Amino acid sequence: MQFTAGGLVVAGSSLPQRLLGFLDAVLRGIGQVMLQGNSYTGLLFLAGIFYNSVLFGWAALLGAIASTVTAIFLGSDRSEVQAGLFGFNGALVAIALLYFLEPGALAWAYVVLAAAFTTVVMVALLRLLGTWRVPALTAPFVFTTWVFVLACARFGRLQTTAVLPTAGLPKAATVEGIVTASTVAEGLFSGIAQVFFQGNAITGAIFVAGLLVSSRVAAGVALAGSCAGLLVAWGLGAAEPAIRAGAFGFNSVLTAIALGSGLFAPRAAAAAYTTLAVVVTAVVFAAMSAALEPLGMPALTSPFVLVTWLFLLAGPLFRQLRSGGGAG
Amino acid sequence: MQFTAGGLVVAGSSLPQRLLGFLDAVLRGIGQVMLQGNSYTGLLFLAGIFYNSVLFGWAALLGAIASTVTAIFLGSDRSEVQAGLFGFNGALVAIALLYFLEPGALAWAYVVLAAAFTTVVMVALLRLLGTWRVPALTAPFVFTTWVFVLACARFGRLQTTAVLPTAGLPKAATVEGIVTASTVAEGLFSGIAQVFFQGNAITGAIFVAGLLVSSRVAAGVALAGSCAGLLVAWGLGAAEPAIRAGAFGFNSVLTAIALGSGLFAPRAAAAAYTTLAVVVTAVVFAAMSAALEPLGMPALTSPFVLVTWLFLLAGPLFRQLRSGGGAG
Amino acid sequence: MQFTAGGLVVAGSSLPQRLLGFLDAVLRGIGQVMLQGNSYTGLLFLAGIFYNSVLFGWAALLGAIASTVTAIFLGSDRSEVQAGLFGFNGALVAIALLYFLEPGALAWAYVVLAAAFTTVVMVALLRLLGTWRVPALTAPFVFTTWVFVLACARFGRLQTTAVLPTAGLPKAATVEGIVTASTVAEGLFSGIAQVFFQGNAITGAIFVAGLLVSSRVAAGVALAGSCAGLLVAWGLGAAEPAIRAGAFGFNSVLTAIALGSGLFAPRAAAAAYTTLAVVVTAVVFAAMSAALEPLGMPALTSPFVLVTWLFLLAGPLFRQLRSGGGAG
Repeated sequence: MQFTAGGLVVAGSSLPQRLLGFLDAVLRGIGQVMLQGNSYTGLLFLAGIFYNSVLFGWAALLGAIASTVTAIFLGSDRSEVQAGLFGFNGALVAIALLYFLEPGALAWAYVVLAAAFTTVVMVALLRLLGTWRVPALTAPFVFTTWVFVLACARFGRLQTTAVLPTAGLPKAATVEGIVTASTVAEGLFSGIAQVFFQGNAITGAIFVAGLLVSSRVAAGVALAGSCAGLLVAWGLGAAEPAIRAGAFGFNSVLTAIALGSGLFAPRAAAAAYTTLAVVVTAVVFAAMSAALEPLGMPALTSPFVLVTWLFLLAGPLFRQLRSGGGAG
Repeated sequence: MQFTAGGLVVAGSSLPQRLLGFLDAVLRGIGQVMLQGNSYTGLLFLAGIFYNSVLFGWAALLGAIASTVTAIFLGSDRSEVQAGLFGFNGALVAIALLYFLEPGALAWAYVVLAAAFTTVVMVALLRLLGTWRVPALTAPFVFTTWVFVLACARFGRLQTTAVLPTAGLPKAATVEGIVTASTVAEGLFSGIAQVFFQGNAITGAIFVAGLLVSSRVAAGVALAGSCAGLLVAWGLGAAEPAIRAGAFGFNSVLTAIALGSGLFAPRAAAAAYTTLAVVVTAVVFAAMSAALEPLGMPALTSPFVLVTWLFLLAGPLFRQLRSGGGAG
Repeated sequence: MQFTAGGLVVAGSSLPQRLLGFLDAVLRGIGQVMLQGNSYTGLLFLAGIFYNSVLFGWAALLGAIASTVTAIFLGSDRSEVQAGLFGFNGALVAIALLYFLEPGALAWAYVVLAAAFTTVVMVALLRLLGTWRVPALTAPFVFTTWVFVLACARFGRLQTTAVLPTAGLPKAATVEGIVTASTVAEGLFSGIAQVFFQGNAITGAIFVAGLLVSSRVAAGVALAGSCAGLLVAWGLGAAEPAIRAGAFGFNSVLTAIALGSGLFAPRAAAAAYTTLAVVVTAVVFAAMSAALEPLGMPALTSPFVLVTWLFLLAGPLFRQLRSGGGAG
């Protein structure tokens, strides 16, 4: 066993060593929610969630464990398991389902089933999207959450909570809805906390600390992404409570991390490209939240997934985004 | 001309021989609704439909003929035509449209148009999904039926029947909705009959006989799939009339046949994988039926298609599902 | 600099030459809305739009410029830029947004953002669909317009106009809705005008002139497509005002141009195949307009995109559509 940047590498195979290796994979999985395969980052993310809610802390841990165990049981690639690739969708789906469903023994069993299913969706998308070398991102979480929450409409023993209707997203710029410095300050960090469904600025600050452990660039672009989402929403007249809660921020945070952490050549065109993606993500969030309103479903991170897929697909065909591309 | 397992092989090219070969392709097409390229199976399926409804019997035959003729006319691969690959979506779309539309000369012409269109969708999906060696399943039927039923909202001469609103799927576990032994017995066979839109347990039993002719394994997993869908719905508190009608069963039946008929290595992981797929299919059915409620559209076999695609895509990447994979 | 069929080829690189080359690419982009990479066609299309509405004329020009400039700035393939591949989605999205949004400085900025985004979607689809050698068609326009109009539901500073609910598409064949010769004559040309959102038969006639400049076959099949869409709608009992306005025509026009301009071998099967596609396009338009009604969104050219993708995907696998295929 040796320590490396970002976590443990377990060489031996005694039971304690294997348990430590498993714990490392689970924590990296929680870190992968913001694309960081780093178990210390995952630990800080978990701390941030527990700070806001003990229920969601346990949910994240259980979800990451269930989806990772499924991957191991079915014989997934070991290096992918160890990098946390099968933990992040399970963690997110578990928080989301316990956010929308009344807790209970059946609800927890339902969460485990959903988390296990995310692993199959993840592997299916790895194969499908591998054709274009595009990652699955949080698409398995989005798809699984929509399915398992919608299904409750037919199942009398699984009750949805009152929070389900997309509260806080009215179209309004009323007198009481004036954006102030406190809106901006709170919205900036809440936007980062909302990546894990946590509407708490302190939790957002702990998440930034978690990103800093892994990559200073990632922490910087995450804050810039949250800020950009907030400014777009403010400029176009979104409702103040939604801005304060970070509703327009979390998808832009993820797009910023995915595209802005050194993927493209450091050039004006690449900066403009990433900015366009982050701004459009906030617009797509507004659109998805409106499109799903008749079903009472939240947009989750679908705007991040859609926009990042498009910009990753298109990227290689734009000469100005490649190293040395200016000469072409 | 020679007889082979599952039907005729027509070597000659006289008119009666060609007609017999065509009839064989049409019957295999009806068998392919449950993934059995066997004309005796198709004949028994047709008998089961006629037993419940003469109208739907003729619809199935007409639809399978129209889509098969389209494939022959456009010059599809002959071995694929002969295997019934272009019949099953036409048969299903014809039954579905005559289930949802008031009958009449225009409705029958509309059915023929829709059945012909399923052949184009089928070939398009064969080419698209061939990239990952994944079959089209009943996706052409689902897409075509949704399109042709939805379109009636704009066409004054095509009236939809009163059955269209997804009746029988309320969220309930009321006093009168207690699941009894008769619910289970009826639901088990109705779940198989519903693959062809037939809510009739005797028809379901005839379908099982049809499967037995082709494959004892297929008949067994079909019953197990219907049972699993029923148990999931019962356990999560679905409404008794929906369980009795087999509404939660038919998609699980198809998923069970597609994944459980010897595709994976005979090992615990493969059994768990197929069981997960069958259980998730029932959840996805509940979700799709809720998602389509604002449009008044039924889920059809979309849950089977979605879940089976995901599990087929992911399958090859799981070591424990491959022969000899345990050693890897 | 030399003149070629369909526009300019600019060899030099002085500023006036580059500006002329850019203008040529923008006009070809407007021509590409009907799949004609011809700047004279684009000029006539622009004239037809200005004839009906000065606002939409400027919108089309601005949109085509914004999306083309984005492609140049990011370093797209020069021959693709010059052929107008990055102009047509921008032109359409600009007209659509100014059709659905109250005008204003913020709305125009929003239009530029949307037009720039269409270029990224276009390149992403070029890469995705290139796997099967299928073109992107107007999918970037459809996706971007849906997103940017839906998003306004959350943005207080962007107001949608009253036209948004899909007016004129009731299910009706009432007394006042009798189809007459004037309905047919007006609907025929309006169906072509509606490709650019212009409900004006004279504009439609100018568009036909634009097509004639580029290709007599394209002009002929465009008229035939508009006629076919109109006849399907009439035959199935669509509302007279919708038929007169060309609502059922414009998607069939585009499908007819895409599939009927010499793509397949000149044979009965190919004619039947294209006819099936054009007829189904009118049905899919009815379906999409009904499916999007709960969201208040229009179908735009999504029926053309969906149907043409399916028929292009399937085409190569049908022997009777290939040259010399009859012998196979």
